[in-house]
Order: sequence, then C-alpha cells, then structure tokens
Amino acid sequence: MNRRMSVGTFAKSLYRILKGKPHIPPSVKDNALLQTILQRRSVRRFTEEPIPDDVFDAILEAGRVAPSTVNLQTWSFAVFDSDQWRAKFEHFIPFRGVRAVIILTDTFRLRQAMDVFPYSPLIDHTVGVMNASLAAMNMNIAAEALGVSSVMLSETGRTGLLDMDFLIEKLGLPEGVIPLMTIVFGYAKSAYPPMPPRLPMNQITFTDMYSPADQTVLHDWVDQMEAGYKAMRPGSSFARQVEVYCGKLGEAEKQLQKLIFHK
Amino acid sequence: MNRRMSVGTFAKSLYRILKGKPHIPPSVKDNALLQTILQRRSVRRFTEEPIPDDVFDAILEAGRVAPSTVNLQTWSFAVFDSDQWRAKFEHFIPFRGVRAVIILTDTFRLRQAMDVFPYSPLIDHTVGVMNASLAAMNMNIAAEALGVSSVMLSETGRTGLLDMDFLIEKLGLPEGVIPLMTIVFGYAKSAYPPMPPRLPMNQITFTDMYSPADQTVLHDWVDQMEAGYKAMRPGSSFARQVEVYCGKLGEAEKQLQKLIFHK
Repeated sequence: MNRRMSVGTFAKSLYRILKGKPHIPPSVKDNALLQTILQRRSVRRFTEEPIPDDVFDAILEAGRVAPSTVNLQTWSFAVFDSDQWRAKFEHFIPFRGVRAVIILTDTFRLRQAMDVFPYSPLIDHTVGVMNASLAAMNMNIAAEALGVSSVMLSETGRTGLLDMDFLIEKLGLPEGVIPLMTIVFGYAKSAYPPMPPRLPMNQITFTDMYSPADQTVLHDWVDQMEAGYKAMRPGSSFARQVEVYCGKLGEAEKQLQKLIFHK
Repeated sequence: MNRRMSVGTFAKSLYRILKGKPHIPPSVKDNALLQTILQRRSVRRFTEEPIPDDVFDAILEAGRVAPSTVNLQTWSFAVFDSDQWRAKFEHFIPFRGVRAVIILTDTFRLRQAMDVFPYSPLIDHTVGVMNASLAAMNMNIAAEALGVSSVMLSETGRTGLLDMDFLIEKLGLPEGVIPLMTIVFGYAKSAYPPMPPRLPMNQITFTDMYSPADQTVLHDWVDQMEAGYKAMRPGSSFARQVEVYCGKLGEAEKQLQKLIFHK
C-alpha cells in the first residue's frame, strides 16, 4: 500500500471513483426516500446556519425510536450546540458543525431498571455497540431527510471510541457507559462530493458459504482510496490516515479491555 | 420485575403504550422520509408476496453504501430468498419472511486488502459491530422506503450473535467474520402495531455530565413492557423473554471471548 502510485493508476482510480455512484435500479429510482438514503454523504464542511430546535429534536427522536435487542435501548446521547460544546471541550465542534451528539453505549441504565442480567461483559458490550449504532444511523438518515448533513466521528478530535478515557472523564460516565462516536450536524457548505469508493456488491455478499474477496478487486479499492485522498484532501494520504488510526489502536485496546473486563 | 401486576397498573401501562407515539414536531410532520423513519416498526407477520429482485437489490445497496470508520466497510452480508434459506437451514425464514440477510462483521477481508493493522482484537470487534450495524439500519430504512417491512433478529431461531458458533459452521466463516443479526424482510400482513415503549427523551439524553435515570420512570417502563407483552403476545411475558435471552448469554459469552481472544 505504500508503493508509489503511477499517474495512470491515479487517473484510472479517480475515474472509477467518479463512476462509483450508488446503483439504483431504474424501477425504483424515482423513490425520493431511497434517493435520500443512497445519496447520503459524510459531510465535513458546514455553513454557520443554526439548526432549529424542532429540526434537531426530530433528529434525536429518530435515535430514541430506533430498534434495539429486546427493545432494551442500551444507548444514551450527549447532546450539544456549539456553545455547549465549546464550554465543555474548549474548542469548536469538529468541522465547525453547529450541533453534536456523542453516541454512548449504555448498559448501566438497563441494570438499574432490571437487575436480572448475568455477567457477560463481551456480549453486553457487543449488544450495546450494535444498538447504539442503529440509533446513530437512524439519526443520520433523519437528518438527511430534514436537509441536515452530518458526519460520524470515532477518532477525529477525540470524539469517540479511540479516546474513551478522555470522554468518560469529561462526561462523568459510570461503569457500563462507553463513548462510541460523535455525530456532527450542520448544513452542508457545498455540493456533496463523490461517494468514497465502496467495494462491489459481489465482494461483500454471498449465499450459502462465505467466499474470500478477490485480491485484485481489493487492491483496486485501495488504489481508489489512495487516489481519492490525493484528489479530495491535498496533502493528505489514505495510507497516512490509516497509520494515524492504527497508531491509536494499541492504547484504545488497553483502555477498552480494562473497561469491559476490569483488567 | 417478577411481582404480579395489578389490573390498574396493567390498564395504565397499556394506555401509556398507546399514547407513546413518536414525537414529531408539527413543523416537520409533513416530511415523508422522516415519517417513514419514525413510523418504522419491527414486523413479525408477513404476506407470501415475494419481494422483486430490483427492490431487494436497492435494499442491499443501502447496506453497501452505508458509512463506516475510515470507509473500511468491515461487513459482509449473507443473502437468502425463502428457498435458499430452507435449503440452508431446513426450515422457513423466521416469521415466514420472504428474504433474509445475515449481517456479519468482517475484518478478515480488510486484512486481506491491507496488512497494516496491529493486534487490537476488542477494538477491531467493536468497530466491526458498529459498522455492520450502521449498514443494517440503512437497509432497514431503505426497505421501509420501498414499502418492505422487516425485523432484526439476534436471538430468535438461531439467527445471530447468540448462536454464532452454529452460523459460523453453517456459513463457513473464517476468523474475523462474526454473525451479528439476521434481518428478515417481507410485506407486512397487517397494520403496524403500537410502538413498543421507549424511554422518555430526558432519560436517555444529557448535556455536560451524565445523570442516572429516574428509578420511577424505569420501573414504569418495565411495567409497560410487561403489559405490552401480555396484550400483544398472549401467553408470552416480557420477564420470560428476558429470561430466555439471559439464559443464552453465558454460552454466547464463552463463544465470543474464544473467537475474539482465542482463549
């Protein structure tokens, strides 16, 4: 992945990124709701326009009514406007978003409600992460439906899982409440960029038995990611982004194992 | 929670369930996609009407284009129609759904693509569960947008996390691929039921510092859950459902710890 990319590969990869639109079957392409879902993007440039309370309330409501395992609702949401965020973290919301929601897995509240659950820390954590993520996606789509853009952050600016100890201290989280990600909300400053390269459907789906992906397709995808970073974020690099991400994994792994298993 | 419920509490709780609709601010209540998102329900009774391929393809596409950490797409989807499911599992899709997708966390493929990730098993697993759950929710909403109903199953009928060893063997899953849930799809046989009781917004959200939920509100929620089971699923009980769920946690915990930590 650190090999230098030829101009030809760069050009070809960019072309593929631009061609890599969601595949919407013609028979359903007039479905406005589907269009909104498939055209959703992670947005990192926002205007200063505030999000009205009623619009933000509707986004939060989509999180509240999300589905969860046995309807156990193992989530909590820390909600901020830009002033509240600055008061808390002493800097702007990442990418100058105007609202932010820190998505937390929460099995603490569930144990307050029902003291019947056996000690199964890894399953508890997994179910908590699953449910909280369902709520996060529901908020993200509800925002799109209301013309509000967003981006989910788990690393950028100490906003999620990879900085859990920092957020646990900042938010006073009890045992069983773990920060997963921050969703930053605002109105997009410009048109949505091309979709970051997704793997082809035939590489991520199967029927009957699992089959490993095609190495050629995977390397092509890595080339597209690298080309996309070069083109969209001058001076940045996919390889470097992955290095930064990997560099935080060791410490985060220690923190999370300590939180989950108390060791 | 096992205390017997008085007729008064039962009636009051049922009334609260029926009143417990999603709160849609008047100013945004005409938004069709928002309505679709907030009115979504987990559906367990389906007609025999098949889902056309192009409609199902659009649902899968919503999974393919879902957001993920650093766009790493740590998911795979095992897709089935009713015949393929019966050939595989020798029984109908749960609740006689007409299509099913088993949602898998997949860090195996990522390591094939990029051999740069350090050993951080718990973070890998957490990120995998988070991303796969985002894809699952996107599929679920896309289905609703197309008039297709669904239910996410993680326990019923050996379809998810709580039966991972069974599914790993059945699907031939390599290390790093873990079954999370099955989404069952079909056309709803009847009108959507009332929303299962959700906790009030002020109990699941906070700004600044975490505050524990109100015990009275939590017990009221448990009463509503119990009353809802009594009313909607005669002969069943929320307490019993939770007992069944808890009964599977011990074994699942062992299986998952073995898969994640090889111990």
